[in-house]
Amino acid sequence: MTDSTSYGVHSEVGRLRKVLVCRPGLAHRRLTPSNSDELLFDDVLWVENAQRDHADFVNKLTGRGVEVVELHDLVAQSLAVPGARDWVLDRKVIPNRVGLGLVEGTRAYLESLAPADLAEVLIGGLATHDLPDDVRSGYVALARESTGAREYLMPPLPNTLYTRDTTCWLYGGLTMNPLYWPARKDETLLYGMVYGFHPDFVGSTVWWGDPEQDWGQATFEGGDVMPVGNGVVLVGMSERTSRQAITQVAAALFAQGAAERVVVAGMPKLRAAMHLDTVFTFADRDVVTLYPTIMDAVHTFSLVPSDRPPGVEVIDEGGTPFVDVVARSLGLPALRVIETGGDVYQSERQQWDSGNNAVALEPGVVITYDRNTLTNTLLRKAGIEVVTIVGAELGRGRGGGHCMTCPIIRDPVDL
Amino acid sequence: MTDSTSYGVHSEVGRLRKVLVCRPGLAHRRLTPSNSDELLFDDVLWVENAQRDHADFVNKLTGRGVEVVELHDLVAQSLAVPGARDWVLDRKVIPNRVGLGLVEGTRAYLESLAPADLAEVLIGGLATHDLPDDVRSGYVALARESTGAREYLMPPLPNTLYTRDTTCWLYGGLTMNPLYWPARKDETLLYGMVYGFHPDFVGSTVWWGDPEQDWGQATFEGGDVMPVGNGVVLVGMSERTSRQAITQVAAALFAQGAAERVVVAGMPKLRAAMHLDTVFTFADRDVVTLYPTIMDAVHTFSLVPSDRPPGVEVIDEGGTPFVDVVARSLGLPALRVIETGGDVYQSERQQWDSGNNAVALEPGVVITYDRNTLTNTLLRKAGIEVVTIVGAELGRGRGGGHCMTCPIIRDPVDL
Amino acid sequence: MTDSTSYGVHSEVGRLRKVLVCRPGLAHRRLTPSNSDELLFDDVLWVENAQRDHADFVNKLTGRGVEVVELHDLVAQSLAVPGARDWVLDRKVIPNRVGLGLVEGTRAYLESLAPADLAEVLIGGLATHDLPDDVRSGYVALARESTGAREYLMPPLPNTLYTRDTTCWLYGGLTMNPLYWPARKDETLLYGMVYGFHPDFVGSTVWWGDPEQDWGQATFEGGDVMPVGNGVVLVGMSERTSRQAITQVAAALFAQGAAERVVVAGMPKLRAAMHLDTVFTFADRDVVTLYPTIMDAVHTFSLVPSDRPPGVEVIDEGGTPFVDVVARSLGLPALRVIETGGDVYQSERQQWDSGNNAVALEPGVVITYDRNTLTNTLLRKAGIEVVTIVGAELGRGRGGGHCMTCPIIRDPVDL
Amino acid sequence: MTDSTSYGVHSEVGRLRKVLVCRPGLAHRRLTPSNSDELLFDDVLWVENAQRDHADFVNKLTGRGVEVVELHDLVAQSLAVPGARDWVLDRKVIPNRVGLGLVEGTRAYLESLAPADLAEVLIGGLATHDLPDDVRSGYVALARESTGAREYLMPPLPNTLYTRDTTCWLYGGLTMNPLYWPARKDETLLYGMVYGFHPDFVGSTVWWGDPEQDWGQATFEGGDVMPVGNGVVLVGMSERTSRQAITQVAAALFAQGAAERVVVAGMPKLRAAMHLDTVFTFADRDVVTLYPTIMDAVHTFSLVPSDRPPGVEVIDEGGTPFVDVVARSLGLPALRVIETGGDVYQSERQQWDSGNNAVALEPGVVITYDRNTLTNTLLRKAGIEVVTIVGAELGRGRGGGHCMTCPIIRDPVDL
Repeated sequence: MTDSTSYGVHSEVGRLRKVLVCRPGLAHRRLTPSNSDELLFDDVLWVENAQRDHADFVNKLTGRGVEVVELHDLVAQSLAVPGARDWVLDRKVIPNRVGLGLVEGTRAYLESLAPADLAEVLIGGLATHDLPDDVRSGYVALARESTGAREYLMPPLPNTLYTRDTTCWLYGGLTMNPLYWPARKDETLLYGMVYGFHPDFVGSTVWWGDPEQDWGQATFEGGDVMPVGNGVVLVGMSERTSRQAITQVAAALFAQGAAERVVVAGMPKLRAAMHLDTVFTFADRDVVTLYPTIMDAVHTFSLVPSDRPPGVEVIDEGGTPFVDVVARSLGLPALRVIETGGDVYQSERQQWDSGNNAVALEPGVVITYDRNTLTNTLLRKAGIEVVTIVGAELGRGRGGGHCMTCPIIRDPVDL
Repeated sequence: MTDSTSYGVHSEVGRLRKVLVCRPGLAHRRLTPSNSDELLFDDVLWVENAQRDHADFVNKLTGRGVEVVELHDLVAQSLAVPGARDWVLDRKVIPNRVGLGLVEGTRAYLESLAPADLAEVLIGGLATHDLPDDVRSGYVALARESTGAREYLMPPLPNTLYTRDTTCWLYGGLTMNPLYWPARKDETLLYGMVYGFHPDFVGSTVWWGDPEQDWGQATFEGGDVMPVGNGVVLVGMSERTSRQAITQVAAALFAQGAAERVVVAGMPKLRAAMHLDTVFTFADRDVVTLYPTIMDAVHTFSLVPSDRPPGVEVIDEGGTPFVDVVARSLGLPALRVIETGGDVYQSERQQWDSGNNAVALEPGVVITYDRNTLTNTLLRKAGIEVVTIVGAELGRGRGGGHCMTCPIIRDPVDL
Repeated sequence: MTDSTSYGVHSEVGRLRKVLVCRPGLAHRRLTPSNSDELLFDDVLWVENAQRDHADFVNKLTGRGVEVVELHDLVAQSLAVPGARDWVLDRKVIPNRVGLGLVEGTRAYLESLAPADLAEVLIGGLATHDLPDDVRSGYVALARESTGAREYLMPPLPNTLYTRDTTCWLYGGLTMNPLYWPARKDETLLYGMVYGFHPDFVGSTVWWGDPEQDWGQATFEGGDVMPVGNGVVLVGMSERTSRQAITQVAAALFAQGAAERVVVAGMPKLRAAMHLDTVFTFADRDVVTLYPTIMDAVHTFSLVPSDRPPGVEVIDEGGTPFVDVVARSLGLPALRVIETGGDVYQSERQQWDSGNNAVALEPGVVITYDRNTLTNTLLRKAGIEVVTIVGAELGRGRGGGHCMTCPIIRDPVDL
Repeated sequence: MTDSTSYGVHSEVGRLRKVLVCRPGLAHRRLTPSNSDELLFDDVLWVENAQRDHADFVNKLTGRGVEVVELHDLVAQSLAVPGARDWVLDRKVIPNRVGLGLVEGTRAYLESLAPADLAEVLIGGLATHDLPDDVRSGYVALARESTGAREYLMPPLPNTLYTRDTTCWLYGGLTMNPLYWPARKDETLLYGMVYGFHPDFVGSTVWWGDPEQDWGQATFEGGDVMPVGNGVVLVGMSERTSRQAITQVAAALFAQGAAERVVVAGMPKLRAAMHLDTVFTFADRDVVTLYPTIMDAVHTFSLVPSDRPPGVEVIDEGGTPFVDVVARSLGLPALRVIETGGDVYQSERQQWDSGNNAVALEPGVVITYDRNTLTNTLLRKAGIEVVTIVGAELGRGRGGGHCMTCPIIRDPVDL
């Protein structure tokens, strides 16, 4: 058993020691062409093969000595701790969510489940036809006639696959992120239970965030966040990660001495630029892979501590390129840049297929999808060791290895 | 001055005595082709003409003896009451909304405004360039680079035009509705201030709802709600009005003796069926105008009080047409139905242009848009007196006279 | 009666002497929310009011001494010429269009109509339910079950309202344009009949184009085309007007001595930039009104005659602004530029509402929509006389006075 | 070498002897997230893996004794026949397509290519940057600034992958189909060359269609067409296959004695119902697999020969289910129906993933995608032998084994 006092992520590329993932499952079996938009997937998956490919991903992580923990397991283990089941069901099984007249039956059914089965339902959702006959009522008919997520007693959470987004370890503590889309808000509640009850996670330092609070427009997603070392955190200001959250996180980090500088990438107003890590990731101490079409249009700001409230000063970096601001903040003369590979057609396609969404296992070693052969070749030519996984199914939610991992322990690097 | 104890809406067509509207203004001057989708408008308006046409609408209401109160005025009058300004600014001017580093300056600026000017901004929104130079900070640059509603320090609320949705008087009390779209949630907060501080509204009976609470999937919009008399309330179960809310409202009404039956129109899963009142309204005691293409696909339920918790019984009406269930619940042999006028092209166009969105001034007298000439003619042939207003601009948000009115006092009718 | 040898358009702002328009009618009564996309309208119209406002537009043109001819009239007058009815029905009433088994009955019905009634149907379309019982067959049932334009025996042509696009008089001759969208291709055929049979139009010089030929990707729309004088033609290269057509037109003009230079505005790849005249028109000899957000991103080319085949040389103007290239080509030191009025919200809204789509009656006198008050004020401050017409209905197809006029005789201007 | 007099397709499930396919290639390497909509693909492919999976598909066909011919090969072989190269280049390399000023250089470059290389470009497209420097001109700059397919000198034809659609063998002859979307129209021209010049195909009987003619609204796609035996042809009347074409084809078949009955499935007006074979295919003499959500809404017509012109009588089958009309027309008491497998979520997903798009090799033996495990299991339980191929990449254009095959020789079955 590990202990949360040892947890911390001190770089983007230092040795990865412990990481959190979530395997595909019931939630993805609920995806259809009609509901995939609302659930934020571009296409439906072949779930069995997505599971196979995810298992291989985990296998490659453990084969490199990384300890991998899995969300269904953590939720199940948490549920075994006294008080946890009540905590989460008191918050999920309420009239505002499952609907009046269905609370008692739903609760009774969920109480009857073993921890692992309940974990499956909490992540995978509960459809009206899942409810046993003996706890059904006339209210079920109303639900069946409803639209979209309201048809469900508990909606599926297929985006838990992307563990990167929901919580972020930044140096010695973490943020519990308020996510942008309604379809994902309940993910944070599950992590609230894990960090509140699971013996391996209780006592972790939370810099910012609380799943029980309404954060309004202050939304924050880990795909936009990178603790790169030297007390610096990079954050993409995007559709999903707002200035309202970024400035609060910066103030919280500065006030607690957790970081000294936040470099903000103001993303262009384009839908392709979902998260910073879809267009920019690190492959080595001073090597990044990026998609120039988007990154060339980034407007950069630096946030630094200030003596005057609210404790943050905003510096507009004007026309200085983002990579130059990042290099300077790390004390490096420059970053080596590996652009998305291929001609204009190929690079656009590879960015789309998560070609720039690399996750490092140690300096100079990354995992990427097999399908981005041109970008992978460029990384290899630059001396990076590239381990590939199958992206045919996993990539359909538009996320790669970086999105599918939440590092919990990662070493610093020498800069 | 009136007194809230006299308030109450006892039918859809009884004499209308007092009504709440909201004139177009600053919020509509913020609408552009780029942001109109997010702000739920199909097109931009010529605001000056929308104001002219709305003034004529008010004029026709007052000319018929209806007392008309206006939201900007109510907000301004409320702000003059001690405590109200703090109440609303404490909730609106917070880091989660305006952004850290902008709270002090924004608050200082808003504190400097007279009540009427502050009301204008609370409804019309506050853009970064509205902030005076002496309270600007480096944080303003971050906001300017943000996207959509986050560019604003306070987003505009153009849908306040549709006062029908935000609160509903149902017989002797009201509901404070949690609205579906994020772009509208702040409307309810403004009504919270009005009902909490305005001398004419303080002390009103609230059956259900609280603008400070998170209602999750329990969303409820007045366009779906009709207190038709005889203790009956009709509710459309739609994208915007969920079973989670409907059942709670029914339970609250039954528990407080406010109603005896809720008839639910399960709307088909089509986007044209936004609210019940876009396809079905009353023109007289026993006369309705409806759009058959949608109404023919409605699945009807009745909710009635029950001795067993949660106090509501759900009756599936099976294949019985909605109008027949409504007639029976009112004790009428049948309803006379006036369908949207014209051939297949014309009726679709008239429904779209709010042709079925009539608001009654008294039994047999309704206000509709001028442009729906064919439906208006059918109403007139059926003996209804039709007063028209200009819909060229007001109709572009897809709402007519029913949507733009929140009745506060309306008499019962003999059935 | 006029004579086509006197026809010619020699500038964008010289005195307008004769112009072609098309009044709204049956085609617009066919528009519905479901089919408006396919028929290229953003919203449905109140047809009676659109007709009223169009009549006022015509009235203002004739009041200024412009001779106005109308498309329904021209089509009807053409149909009265022997051979014309057969020419158009032989091409429209064929199995590929009306459908096998419906040709005879449709033809018989159309043959029975007076010229004016047939003109109405040729422009307004023929629905299955328009066909009299005595010529109906089992094939009608198939049509009724079809989707979109295929439901019609002849689809409506609502975009005839925009006479600017279908033919262009460029100095002493005209082009018969192959239009981009399938929904508009039949418009050119009607003009083919007018120019082939109508006594006022027979014998006109056609520089380029033939409605009976398949032009492939060579599509050309008059909203992108401006004969500005000095032998220069401006052409927007847009979604609708392709390089394949522009170069052919330039070669045809040069070979026939009709023009000496074509200045091409390479429009940015944005949907708002539909036609050049939606973002750039002339108001006086040296005054233009433009929408800078789009025009700043234009890439300019000049096409000039060449001795080598195919007779056209392409000059890439690099970074030189479009207005500077235009000024130079006209021998002017510079153009005075009046940008769309108002702040960032207002200017975007006014461009959308055809704020830059002015049509000049003579140098310094233009017609625009009433709703673009800010841009109209800027034009007036610059000394332009602005005559306004009502845009509430007419503007819903996203076109203004420039789009709704096809000049046939316009004087040159001194430059 | 085979001889076209032996060609013919006499059923949907008789022994398949010869079939035409098209391997993925250059055209799919041109697909990007930006252009995939215009090119009718839902997502981009990993082309190398799509090629691998397609090779396996071909391998499984040949392993069962089917002779497989491939479109690139047929085009290359045709180009080796004197006259063929000129025929196709005279039609493709013209100003209306490649653009004026680019015809000579493009033609010179294409003339320099070997047949196989030219075949690759005719299918895969020609981008501006493919053109060698020595044949470039100023006109290339214009093309590069154009949008969408106009950027190309010859646009890519990625939908050639679906050989089913472009031509249909119906009993002893074929139709050369006018396709619905502009992006596909050029496919038919390539088949025109193959059937006009390739020694194995010259002399085939063409029932209907001509790639050089403009068919207007008469569009016809093979995915909607099934020669089921007994002189019957099933046709889906869909967005892509119009009544204007269906009636003409029926008349042509009847007049030439090629068929005795056409059963028309009037598809509901839903986008999911692209082609009949996406929701309904045969697996054995009397076994079909279908997606009930769509098929239940089909309205059925029968077309039979008539003595009166145009030689076709239309019979409205009223409420009789499509499968019953089909069974009756085949002289069968009934069809055994295997519905898409799984619960409501799974069946919708499997239909989307081409779960009902089976292609039969002989009675009771079909090829389907591996991913539709539930439907495949149901087919196997019904006694069907199911051979699977990998659909991870190939399926992203929304077509399966039926779409990717154009049978040329298939035996009849006993009914």
